[in-house]
Amino acid sequence: MSGSPLVNQLIEALRCLPGVGPKSAQRMAYHLLERERVAAENLSAVLAKAVNEVGHCELCRSLTERKVCDICESSNRDRTLLCIVESPSDVQVIEQSTDYKGLFFVLMGHLSPLDGIGPEDIGLDLLASRLDQGEVKEVVLATNFTIEGEATAHYISEMVNSRNIIASRIAHGVPVGGELEYVNSTTLSRAFSGRQNF
Amino acid sequence: MSGSPLVNQLIEALRCLPGVGPKSAQRMAYHLLERERVAAENLSAVLAKAVNEVGHCELCRSLTERKVCDICESSNRDRTLLCIVESPSDVQVIEQSTDYKGLFFVLMGHLSPLDGIGPEDIGLDLLASRLDQGEVKEVVLATNFTIEGEATAHYISEMVNSRNIIASRIAHGVPVGGELEYVNSTTLSRAFSGRQNF
Repeated sequence: MSGSPLVNQLIEALRCLPGVGPKSAQRMAYHLLERERVAAENLSAVLAKAVNEVGHCELCRSLTERKVCDICESSNRDRTLLCIVESPSDVQVIEQSTDYKGLFFVLMGHLSPLDGIGPEDIGLDLLASRLDQGEVKEVVLATNFTIEGEATAHYISEMVNSRNIIASRIAHGVPVGGELEYVNSTTLSRAFSGRQNF
Repeated sequence: MSGSPLVNQLIEALRCLPGVGPKSAQRMAYHLLERERVAAENLSAVLAKAVNEVGHCELCRSLTERKVCDICESSNRDRTLLCIVESPSDVQVIEQSTDYKGLFFVLMGHLSPLDGIGPEDIGLDLLASRLDQGEVKEVVLATNFTIEGEATAHYISEMVNSRNIIASRIAHGVPVGGELEYVNSTTLSRAFSGRQNF
Protein backbone atom coordinates (compact mmCIF):
# COMPACT_ATOMS: atom_id res chain seq x y z
CA MET A 1 0.00 0.00 0.00
CA SER A 2 1.22 3.49 -0.79
CA GLY A 3 1.02 6.32 1.72
CA SER A 4 -2.03 7.78 -0.04
CA PRO A 5 -5.58 6.39 0.27
CA LEU A 6 -6.59 8.19 -2.94
CA VAL A 7 -3.76 6.59 -4.94
CA ASN A 8 -4.79 3.18 -3.53
CA GLN A 9 -8.37 3.92 -4.58
CA LEU A 10 -7.18 4.76 -8.10
CA ILE A 11 -5.18 1.50 -8.29
CA GLU A 12 -8.29 -0.40 -7.24
CA ALA A 13 -10.49 1.45 -9.77
CA LEU A 14 -8.13 0.71 -12.67
CA ARG A 15 -8.68 -3.01 -12.12
CA CYS A 16 -12.04 -2.79 -13.92
CA LEU A 17 -10.01 -2.71 -17.15
CA PRO A 18 -9.77 -6.13 -18.83
CA GLY A 19 -6.42 -7.87 -18.37
CA VAL A 20 -5.26 -5.44 -15.68
CA GLY A 21 -4.13 -7.10 -12.44
CA PRO A 22 -2.80 -5.50 -9.25
CA LYS A 23 0.74 -4.96 -10.62
CA SER A 24 -0.34 -3.29 -13.88
CA ALA A 25 -2.95 -1.18 -12.09
CA GLN A 26 -0.21 0.08 -9.78
CA ARG A 27 2.09 0.86 -12.69
CA MET A 28 -0.73 2.66 -14.52
CA ALA A 29 -1.70 4.78 -11.51
CA TYR A 30 1.86 5.98 -10.89
CA HIS A 31 2.48 6.56 -14.58
CA LEU A 32 -0.64 8.72 -14.90
CA LEU A 33 0.04 10.73 -11.75
CA GLU A 34 3.77 11.21 -12.32
CA ARG A 35 3.88 11.80 -16.05
CA GLU A 36 0.50 12.01 -17.75
CA ARG A 37 -1.78 14.29 -15.75
CA VAL A 38 -3.22 16.10 -18.76
CA ALA A 39 -3.91 12.85 -20.63
CA ALA A 40 -5.37 11.35 -17.45
CA GLU A 41 -7.76 14.26 -17.02
CA ASN A 42 -8.81 13.87 -20.66
CA LEU A 43 -9.33 10.13 -20.18
CA SER A 44 -11.49 10.79 -17.13
CA ALA A 45 -13.66 13.29 -19.05
CA VAL A 46 -14.04 11.17 -22.21
CA LEU A 47 -14.83 8.09 -20.13
CA ALA A 48 -17.57 9.87 -18.17
CA LYS A 49 -19.02 11.31 -21.39
CA ALA A 50 -18.96 7.92 -23.14
CA VAL A 51 -20.59 6.11 -20.21
CA ASN A 52 -23.36 8.70 -20.07
CA GLU A 53 -23.98 9.23 -23.77
CA VAL A 54 -23.16 6.03 -25.65
CA GLY A 55 -26.21 3.84 -26.13
CA HIS A 56 -27.35 1.42 -28.83
CA CYS A 57 -28.08 2.25 -32.46
CA GLU A 58 -31.83 1.91 -33.14
CA LEU A 59 -31.17 0.03 -36.37
CA CYS A 60 -28.18 -2.23 -35.73
CA ARG A 61 -27.91 -2.22 -31.90
CA SER A 62 -24.21 -1.30 -32.10
CA LEU A 63 -22.74 1.31 -29.73
CA THR A 64 -23.30 4.95 -30.65
CA GLU A 65 -23.97 8.28 -28.96
CA ARG A 66 -26.66 9.09 -31.55
CA LYS A 67 -30.01 7.48 -32.37
CA VAL A 68 -28.55 5.84 -35.49
CA CYS A 69 -24.84 5.02 -35.88
CA ASP A 70 -22.56 6.39 -38.60
CA ILE A 71 -22.49 3.11 -40.53
CA CYS A 72 -26.30 2.70 -40.63
CA GLU A 73 -26.67 6.36 -41.62
CA SER A 74 -24.02 6.32 -44.36
CA SER A 75 -25.21 6.63 -47.95
CA ASN A 76 -22.14 4.73 -49.23
CA ARG A 77 -23.16 1.32 -47.94
CA ASP A 78 -24.89 -1.52 -49.77
CA ARG A 79 -28.23 -1.68 -47.95
CA THR A 80 -29.13 -5.07 -49.45
CA LEU A 81 -26.35 -6.80 -47.47
CA LEU A 82 -26.68 -7.34 -43.72
CA CYS A 83 -23.86 -8.87 -41.67
CA ILE A 84 -24.79 -10.39 -38.28
CA VAL A 85 -22.13 -10.23 -35.56
CA GLU A 86 -22.09 -10.86 -31.82
CA SER A 87 -20.52 -7.63 -30.54
CA PRO A 88 -19.61 -4.06 -31.56
CA SER A 89 -15.91 -4.95 -31.53
CA ASP A 90 -16.60 -7.50 -34.29
CA VAL A 91 -17.96 -4.63 -36.41
CA GLN A 92 -14.72 -2.75 -35.88
CA VAL A 93 -12.55 -5.77 -36.75
CA ILE A 94 -14.52 -6.41 -39.96
CA GLU A 95 -14.36 -2.71 -40.91
CA GLN A 96 -10.61 -2.67 -40.37
CA SER A 97 -9.72 -5.86 -42.21
CA THR A 98 -12.23 -6.55 -44.97
CA ASP A 99 -13.77 -4.61 -47.83
CA TYR A 100 -17.31 -5.50 -46.75
CA LYS A 101 -19.54 -2.54 -47.62
CA GLY A 102 -22.96 -3.67 -46.42
CA LEU A 103 -24.66 -2.92 -43.13
CA PHE A 104 -24.38 -4.67 -39.77
CA PHE A 105 -26.68 -6.05 -37.13
CA VAL A 106 -25.16 -6.58 -33.67
CA LEU A 107 -26.68 -9.26 -31.46
CA MET A 108 -24.87 -8.07 -28.30
CA GLY A 109 -24.41 -11.73 -27.36
CA HIS A 110 -25.54 -15.12 -28.64
CA LEU A 111 -28.39 -17.54 -27.96
CA SER A 112 -27.75 -19.39 -24.73
CA PRO A 113 -30.86 -21.14 -23.41
CA LEU A 114 -29.02 -22.38 -20.30
CA ASP A 115 -28.32 -18.77 -19.28
CA GLY A 116 -31.88 -17.77 -20.17
CA ILE A 117 -30.78 -15.80 -23.25
CA GLY A 118 -33.45 -16.28 -25.89
CA PRO A 119 -34.13 -14.78 -29.35
CA GLU A 120 -35.58 -11.53 -28.02
CA ASP A 121 -32.60 -10.86 -25.74
CA ILE A 122 -30.34 -10.75 -28.79
CA GLY A 123 -32.74 -8.54 -30.78
CA LEU A 124 -34.09 -11.14 -33.19
CA ASP A 125 -37.55 -9.54 -33.09
CA LEU A 126 -35.95 -6.32 -34.35
CA LEU A 127 -34.06 -8.34 -36.98
CA ALA A 128 -37.28 -10.05 -38.12
CA SER A 129 -39.08 -6.76 -38.74
CA ARG A 130 -35.97 -5.47 -40.51
CA LEU A 131 -36.02 -8.48 -42.85
CA ASP A 132 -39.77 -8.06 -43.42
CA GLN A 133 -39.16 -4.57 -44.82
CA GLY A 134 -37.75 -6.28 -47.94
CA GLU A 135 -34.62 -4.15 -48.42
CA VAL A 136 -32.16 -6.88 -47.34
CA LYS A 137 -31.32 -9.46 -50.04
CA GLU A 138 -28.51 -11.37 -48.30
CA VAL A 139 -27.67 -11.96 -44.65
CA VAL A 140 -23.99 -12.75 -43.92
CA LEU A 141 -23.67 -14.70 -40.68
CA ALA A 142 -20.42 -13.72 -38.93
CA THR A 143 -21.07 -14.96 -35.39
CA ASN A 144 -18.14 -16.66 -33.68
CA PHE A 145 -17.21 -20.25 -34.53
CA THR A 146 -18.08 -21.45 -31.03
CA ILE A 147 -20.89 -23.83 -30.16
CA GLU A 148 -23.17 -20.93 -29.17
CA GLY A 149 -22.14 -18.83 -32.17
CA GLU A 150 -22.83 -21.71 -34.56
CA ALA A 151 -26.20 -22.44 -32.95
CA THR A 152 -27.14 -18.75 -33.18
CA ALA A 153 -26.10 -18.63 -36.85
CA HIS A 154 -28.16 -21.74 -37.55
CA TYR A 155 -31.25 -20.30 -35.81
CA ILE A 156 -30.97 -17.01 -37.72
CA SER A 157 -30.36 -18.78 -41.06
CA GLU A 158 -33.76 -20.46 -40.65
CA MET A 159 -35.45 -17.10 -39.94
CA VAL A 160 -33.76 -15.70 -43.05
CA ASN A 161 -34.49 -18.62 -45.40
CA SER A 162 -38.16 -18.71 -44.39
CA ARG A 163 -38.42 -15.17 -45.83
CA ASN A 164 -36.79 -16.22 -49.14
CA ILE A 165 -33.65 -14.19 -48.39
CA ILE A 166 -30.16 -15.63 -48.95
CA ALA A 167 -28.27 -16.59 -45.76
CA SER A 168 -24.48 -17.09 -46.03
CA ARG A 169 -21.84 -18.00 -43.44
CA ILE A 170 -18.27 -16.66 -43.52
CA ALA A 171 -15.78 -19.41 -44.39
CA HIS A 172 -14.14 -21.83 -42.00
CA GLY A 173 -10.62 -22.93 -42.92
CA VAL A 174 -6.90 -22.78 -42.39
CA PRO A 175 -5.83 -19.26 -41.33
CA VAL A 176 -3.62 -17.36 -43.79
CA GLY A 177 0.00 -18.00 -42.81
CA GLY A 178 -1.13 -21.06 -40.81
CA GLU A 179 0.77 -24.33 -41.17
CA LEU A 180 -1.37 -27.45 -41.60
CA GLU A 181 0.60 -29.22 -38.91
CA TYR A 182 -0.55 -26.74 -36.26
CA VAL A 183 -4.19 -26.39 -37.30
CA ASN A 184 -6.71 -28.34 -35.20
CA SER A 185 -8.43 -31.30 -36.80
CA THR A 186 -11.96 -29.84 -36.91
CA THR A 187 -10.69 -26.76 -38.76
CA LEU A 188 -8.72 -28.92 -41.19
CA SER A 189 -11.68 -31.18 -41.92
CA ARG A 190 -13.87 -28.06 -42.50
CA ALA A 191 -11.17 -26.69 -44.81
CA PHE A 192 -11.36 -29.89 -46.91
CA SER A 193 -15.15 -30.06 -47.03
CA GLY A 194 -15.28 -26.37 -47.96
CA ARG A 195 -12.64 -26.57 -50.72
CA GLN A 196 -13.15 -24.45 -53.82
CA ASN A 197 -11.98 -24.79 -57.42
CA PHE A 198 -8.57 -23.21 -58.00
CA MET B 1 -13.14 2.64 -36.88
CA SER B 2 -16.43 2.02 -35.14
CA GLY B 3 -19.64 3.80 -36.08
CA SER B 4 -19.31 6.14 -33.08
CA PRO B 5 -16.92 9.12 -32.87
CA LEU B 6 -17.20 9.11 -29.07
CA VAL B 7 -16.18 5.45 -28.83
CA ASN B 8 -13.20 6.19 -31.12
CA GLN B 9 -12.29 9.12 -28.86
CA LEU B 10 -12.41 6.82 -25.82
CA ILE B 11 -10.16 4.26 -27.56
CA GLU B 12 -7.68 7.05 -28.33
CA ALA B 13 -7.80 8.40 -24.75
CA LEU B 14 -7.13 4.95 -23.24
CA ARG B 15 -3.77 4.85 -25.02
CA CYS B 16 -2.26 7.18 -22.40
CA LEU B 17 -2.08 4.08 -20.19
CA PRO B 18 1.37 2.46 -20.18
CA GLY B 19 1.60 -0.70 -22.27
CA VAL B 20 -1.76 -0.13 -23.96
CA GLY B 21 -1.64 -0.19 -27.77
CA PRO B 22 -4.48 0.24 -30.27
CA LYS B 23 -5.79 -3.33 -29.90
CA SER B 24 -5.92 -3.33 -26.09
CA ALA B 25 -7.43 0.17 -26.04
CA GLN B 26 -10.20 -1.06 -28.32
CA ARG B 27 -10.82 -4.12 -26.16
CA MET B 28 -10.89 -1.96 -23.02
CA ALA B 29 -13.33 0.57 -24.49
CA TYR B 30 -15.82 -2.09 -25.58
CA HIS B 31 -15.45 -4.00 -22.33
CA LEU B 32 -16.20 -0.87 -20.26
CA LEU B 33 -19.17 0.21 -22.38
CA GLU B 34 -20.71 -3.23 -22.78
CA ARG B 35 -20.17 -4.72 -19.36
CA GLU B 36 -18.68 -2.34 -16.80
CA ARG B 37 -20.50 0.99 -16.94
CA VAL B 38 -20.72 1.42 -13.17
CA ALA B 39 -17.02 0.60 -12.67
CA ALA B 40 -16.12 2.86 -15.60
CA GLU B 41 -18.02 5.77 -14.07
CA ASN B 42 -16.24 5.16 -10.78
CA LEU B 43 -12.86 5.00 -12.55
CA SER B 44 -13.58 8.31 -14.28
CA ALA B 45 -14.50 9.99 -10.98
CA VAL B 46 -11.55 8.61 -8.99
CA LEU B 47 -9.14 9.48 -11.79
CA ALA B 48 -10.35 13.10 -11.96
CA LYS B 49 -10.17 13.39 -8.18
CA ALA B 50 -6.66 11.91 -8.04
CA VAL B 51 -5.36 14.16 -10.83
CA ASN B 52 -6.73 17.23 -9.06
CA GLU B 53 -5.91 16.40 -5.47
CA VAL B 54 -2.80 14.22 -5.38
CA GLY B 55 0.35 16.25 -4.94
CA HIS B 56 3.69 15.63 -3.24
CA CYS B 57 4.27 15.00 0.46
CA GLU B 58 6.09 17.96 2.02
CA LEU B 59 8.48 15.66 3.87
CA CYS B 60 9.24 12.77 1.48
CA ARG B 61 8.03 14.10 -1.90
CA SER B 62 5.97 10.93 -2.46
CA LEU B 63 2.44 11.17 -3.87
CA THR B 64 -0.33 12.07 -1.44
CA GLU B 65 -3.57 14.06 -1.35
CA ARG B 66 -2.59 15.55 2.02
CA LYS B 67 0.29 17.84 3.04
CA VAL B 68 2.15 14.95 4.66
CA CYS B 69 1.68 11.31 3.55
CA ASP B 70 0.47 8.47 5.79
CA ILE B 71 3.94 6.93 6.11
CA CYS B 72 5.66 10.17 7.17
CA GLU B 73 2.83 10.88 9.62
CA SER B 74 2.72 7.41 11.17
CA SER B 75 3.95 7.08 14.76
CA ASN B 76 4.92 3.42 14.19
CA ARG B 77 7.93 4.11 11.97
CA ASP B 78 11.60 4.27 12.94
CA ARG B 79 12.38 7.95 12.28
CA THR B 80 16.16 7.40 12.47
CA LEU B 81 16.13 5.35 9.23
CA LEU B 82 15.62 7.09 5.88
CA CYS B 83 15.39 5.11 2.64
CA ILE B 84 16.06 6.97 -0.62
CA VAL B 85 14.17 5.76 -3.70
CA GLU B 86 13.62 7.10 -7.20
CA SER B 87 9.84 6.93 -7.45
CA PRO B 88 6.65 6.49 -5.40
CA SER B 89 6.13 3.03 -6.90
CA ASP B 90 9.44 1.96 -5.33
CA VAL B 91 8.00 2.92 -1.92
CA GLN B 92 5.04 0.67 -2.58
CA VAL B 93 7.21 -2.26 -3.69
CA ILE B 94 9.41 -1.97 -0.60
CA GLU B 95 6.36 -1.69 1.66
CA GLN B 96 4.84 -4.80 0.11
CA SER B 97 7.90 -7.01 0.13
CA THR B 98 10.22 -6.07 2.99
CA ASP B 99 9.89 -5.47 6.71
CA TYR B 100 11.59 -2.07 6.47
CA LYS B 101 10.01 0.18 9.07
CA GLY B 102 11.86 3.46 8.59
CA LEU B 103 10.82 6.50 6.56
CA PHE B 104 11.28 7.24 2.86
CA PHE B 105 12.54 10.05 0.71
CA VAL B 106 11.45 10.00 -2.95
CA LEU B 107 13.71 11.68 -5.51
CA MET B 108 11.08 11.60 -8.30
CA GLY B 109 13.90 10.77 -10.72
CA HIS B 110 17.68 10.53 -10.66
CA LEU B 111 20.64 12.80 -11.39
CA SER B 112 21.09 13.16 -15.13
CA PRO B 113 23.36 16.07 -16.05
CA LEU B 114 22.87 15.41 -19.79
CA ASP B 115 19.12 16.00 -19.41
CA GLY B 116 19.75 19.02 -17.19
CA ILE B 117 18.54 17.22 -14.06
CA GLY B 118 20.70 18.40 -11.16
CA PRO B 119 20.62 17.94 -7.36
CA GLU B 120 17.84 20.47 -6.75
CA ASP B 121 15.54 18.89 -9.33
CA ILE B 122 15.53 15.67 -7.31
CA GLY B 123 15.01 17.49 -4.00
CA LEU B 124 18.51 17.12 -2.56
CA ASP B 125 18.28 20.61 -0.97
CA LEU B 126 15.22 19.36 0.95
CA LEU B 127 17.12 16.17 1.85
CA ALA B 128 20.11 18.19 3.10
CA SER B 129 18.00 20.24 5.49
CA ARG B 130 16.27 17.03 6.63
CA LEU B 131 19.66 15.47 7.44
CA ASP B 132 20.75 18.65 9.23
CA GLN B 133 17.85 18.29 11.68
CA GLY B 134 19.81 15.42 13.27
CA GLU B 135 16.97 12.90 13.60
CA VAL B 136 18.21 10.57 10.84
CA LYS B 137 20.99 8.16 11.86
CA GLU B 138 21.19 5.97 8.74
CA VAL B 139 20.35 6.59 5.10
CA VAL B 140 19.54 3.45 3.06
CA LEU B 141 20.20 4.06 -0.63
CA ALA B 142 17.67 2.12 -2.71
CA THR B 143 17.96 3.86 -6.06
CA ASN B 144 17.94 1.58 -9.11
CA PHE B 145 21.05 -0.37 -10.12
CA THR B 146 21.37 1.57 -13.37
CA ILE B 147 24.23 3.92 -14.25
CA GLU B 148 22.16 6.96 -13.26
CA GLY B 149 20.82 5.29 -10.13
CA GLU B 150 24.32 4.30 -9.02
CA ALA B 151 25.69 7.79 -9.70
CA THR B 152 22.83 9.33 -7.74
CA ALA B 153 23.42 6.94 -4.82
CA HIS B 154 27.12 7.82 -4.86
CA TYR B 155 26.40 11.56 -4.86
CA ILE B 156 23.96 11.25 -1.96
CA SER B 157 26.30 8.98 0.02
CA GLU B 158 28.87 11.80 0.01
CA MET B 159 26.27 14.30 1.27
CA VAL B 160 25.34 11.84 4.02
CA ASN B 161 28.88 10.89 5.08
CA SER B 162 29.96 14.54 5.29
CA ARG B 163 27.32 14.91 8.04
CA ASN B 164 28.64 11.89 9.97
CA ILE B 165 25.53 9.88 9.21
CA ILE B 166 25.73 6.23 8.07
CA ALA B 167 25.00 5.68 4.37
CA SER B 168 24.19 2.11 3.27
CA ARG B 169 23.29 0.61 -0.10
CA ILE B 170 20.88 -2.30 -0.57
CA ALA B 171 22.69 -5.49 -1.66
CA HIS B 172 23.53 -6.49 -5.21
CA GLY B 173 23.54 -10.23 -5.92
CA VAL B 174 21.93 -13.27 -7.42
CA PRO B 175 18.11 -13.03 -7.19
CA VAL B 176 16.39 -15.59 -4.98
CA GLY B 177 15.37 -18.52 -7.18
CA GLY B 178 17.86 -17.37 -9.80
CA GLU B 179 20.17 -19.90 -11.44
CA LEU B 180 23.81 -18.86 -11.68
CA GLU B 181 23.88 -19.85 -15.34
CA TYR B 182 21.32 -17.19 -16.24
CA VAL B 183 22.62 -14.34 -14.08
CA ASN B 184 24.63 -11.69 -15.93
CA SER B 185 28.35 -11.47 -15.23
CA THR B 186 28.35 -8.08 -13.47
CA THR B 187 25.71 -9.29 -11.02
CA LEU B 188 27.63 -12.50 -10.40
CA SER B 189 30.91 -10.70 -9.78
CA ARG B 190 29.10 -8.31 -7.37
CA ALA B 191 27.58 -11.35 -5.62
CA PHE B 192 31.10 -12.72 -5.05
CA SER B 193 32.66 -9.50 -3.86
CA GLY B 194 29.69 -8.94 -1.53
CA ARG B 195 29.75 -12.45 -0.04
CA GLN B 196 28.97 -12.85 3.67
CA ASN B 197 29.91 -15.47 6.28
CA PHE B 198 27.47 -18.36 6.39
